[in-house]
Amino acid sequence: MNLPPVLAPGGIDPRTQACSTAELGPLKLDCGVVLERITVAWRTYGTLNADKSNAILVCHALTGDQYLADSHPVTGKPGWWHTLVGPGNLFDTDRYFLICSNVLGGCMGTTGPVEINPQTGKPWGLGFPVITIGDMVNAQALLLDHLGIEQLFCVVGGSMGGMQVLEWAASHPRRVFAALPIATSSRHSAQNIAFGEVGRQAIMADPDWHEGDYHSHGTNPHRGLAVARMAAHITYLSEPALHKKFGRKLQNRQNVTYGFEADFQIESYLRHQGSTFVERFDANSYLYITRAMDYFDLAAEHGGKLANAFKGTPVRFCVISFTSDWLFPTQESRAIVHALNAVAANVSFVEIDSDKGHDAFLLDEPEFHKTLQGFLDGAAEHRGLLPGRSVDS
Amino acid sequence: MNLPPVLAPGGIDPRTQACSTAELGPLKLDCGVVLERITVAWRTYGTLNADKSNAILVCHALTGDQYLADSHPVTGKPGWWHTLVGPGNLFDTDRYFLICSNVLGGCMGTTGPVEINPQTGKPWGLGFPVITIGDMVNAQALLLDHLGIEQLFCVVGGSMGGMQVLEWAASHPRRVFAALPIATSSRHSAQNIAFGEVGRQAIMADPDWHEGDYHSHGTNPHRGLAVARMAAHITYLSEPALHKKFGRKLQNRQNVTYGFEADFQIESYLRHQGSTFVERFDANSYLYITRAMDYFDLAAEHGGKLANAFKGTPVRFCVISFTSDWLFPTQESRAIVHALNAVAANVSFVEIDSDKGHDAFLLDEPEFHKTLQGFLDGAAEHRGLLPGRSVDS
Repeated sequence: MNLPPVLAPGGIDPRTQACSTAELGPLKLDCGVVLERITVAWRTYGTLNADKSNAILVCHALTGDQYLADSHPVTGKPGWWHTLVGPGNLFDTDRYFLICSNVLGGCMGTTGPVEINPQTGKPWGLGFPVITIGDMVNAQALLLDHLGIEQLFCVVGGSMGGMQVLEWAASHPRRVFAALPIATSSRHSAQNIAFGEVGRQAIMADPDWHEGDYHSHGTNPHRGLAVARMAAHITYLSEPALHKKFGRKLQNRQNVTYGFEADFQIESYLRHQGSTFVERFDANSYLYITRAMDYFDLAAEHGGKLANAFKGTPVRFCVISFTSDWLFPTQESRAIVHALNAVAANVSFVEIDSDKGHDAFLLDEPEFHKTLQGFLDGAAEHRGLLPGRSVDS
Repeated sequence: MNLPPVLAPGGIDPRTQACSTAELGPLKLDCGVVLERITVAWRTYGTLNADKSNAILVCHALTGDQYLADSHPVTGKPGWWHTLVGPGNLFDTDRYFLICSNVLGGCMGTTGPVEINPQTGKPWGLGFPVITIGDMVNAQALLLDHLGIEQLFCVVGGSMGGMQVLEWAASHPRRVFAALPIATSSRHSAQNIAFGEVGRQAIMADPDWHEGDYHSHGTNPHRGLAVARMAAHITYLSEPALHKKFGRKLQNRQNVTYGFEADFQIESYLRHQGSTFVERFDANSYLYITRAMDYFDLAAEHGGKLANAFKGTPVRFCVISFTSDWLFPTQESRAIVHALNAVAANVSFVEIDSDKGHDAFLLDEPEFHKTLQGFLDGAAEHRGLLPGRSVDS
């Protein structure tokens, strides 16, 4: 099954059949546009406790979605953090109430360029306003209002999810008890903007893109989107991991074919990444979300000084990076930690030794999981979420 | 002026007006195909001495060509190493006879997919056989035969040029006095194959590519080739250099535009790299040459052990890498040096401290140039090319 390009009126939307949606708003965007109503699609796991103090907001990355722990309704694959969620698990659904919503600009049910513009009755396409990480966070804040949750116990996420975590802590410090930004940065680097631009240009170079109006033309820029995904995917892995996993191994053959087929396993793997991605993701969403990442610059939002973003913050932070992550290298996390230290914030910082690259936050990395567990347990104790323990905050 | 896609019969070819060409052959390729006649286009600088002992073969990289030191006939830009070539210069044209030929598979006059297939009277396109670095070197060897040069004083090149240097030393050790492989590797890594594949897929995704037969269709896959170039260009630079040069600086504007224009200087720069590249390069050539790099694996050609490639070699080597080069990192050069040490070859190895990334070998990097100069001077003395010095070899 492919992502439905445009939904039949009154039809059942497979993307949101297994999750909740609500009409919220108005939402004033950073670009100045006001969206009177937005749809937010989200999934929860566990139960909100009586004093609504056990909510964890999980922020997804560029191509993630609200299906954190259960199978993806389009691909059928397990949720992107499913190994960490469940009763007695790291994100213990007996203790916590997990919320994961599709970001603004996404393509899994939350308002974005693939959805219908109420003004025109047609998909927004490039008519959708350009959004920011701050806008994504404000949409999530509307959802929390809707759910009656004043303060999150924790907000956690990796990569672009980590940008949202930082934005939450900076813009809504009273609504966050603990923050876990993972494998992320307080601003997108020149190199990362460059990779984002390559992806966008690949999409826009596809004649089936039609200036973003492919729905009207009955086309889909699958080829461009696949190339964008392939280029991005390389940045999610590390050179040592690629070497270990693929090296120069050939794909189901003894010798090279002297042709342009996927002789090497790495080629076959990348092509597969491209071709499966386009089944579940919208090309315009890819443009908007990568743009939001490019625009993210928390220091610039606070007078050019990152520490200003966290002045007097009551939030307790745990910042995590991975040694082989070259997309969001440790130095980016260190800059966040320096800024937090400069305002005497409560922060711990752990660099996890891993050869898995940026994607380590999505993979089986025991030291990383131990770190998450330790921080969550400590914060839960302080928040009075451990049974039989005293509450000190 | 754009690269002429197909030359008018009897027309003047701007690509080769300012260089020499010759019909050579036959050339048996690694894939098994025999090309009865190939055209090689080359440029020389300086004068061949009486005993033909002062020839330096300069091997160009993926998108380089024979216009080493004079202006490029299509773009009008100075040659890619023009600062190093001339009387009294590093590559001293009063002392050396420099030869630089367009590689087999290239698009600046040497036989490649853009040239006319004599069997069909039409451009080769994908009918051109897949070539290897070894094939490129064997085409150069035919050129040396044609010029009556038995032994090169030196063979030098960076990146894919360095691969050719290694192949020369391994396959024709008696024809090489000294070898200077720069910023290169004895085999393409999984990550580099991955980047190569992204570029190829970007080209092949362009409907104007027409399975390589764009000449017949009167089209040109410029958009795909531009995306390929943009992705590759990122890998030629270092993150620190990008940060220093561009950071998050905006392009001729005070604020972001909340759109998909090139708000950031790095975006504008990359787009420019893409759009100027397509004027001088052929998309099919890009496929063939990246494929040749992917296939390069000198150890595999010698029973799986790199040292075997250099057993008993009389060649004196100088291996050079750059600290910030992440496309061909120092560890790749070190592997070459280890293999040379294992066979007690004459080798020196220098890692140049530079933040310029892979492209450092093309840029103003004084320590690098000093290293080149020192090695060339020493080798020239041993080869009896310094006036008034004794000849010891």
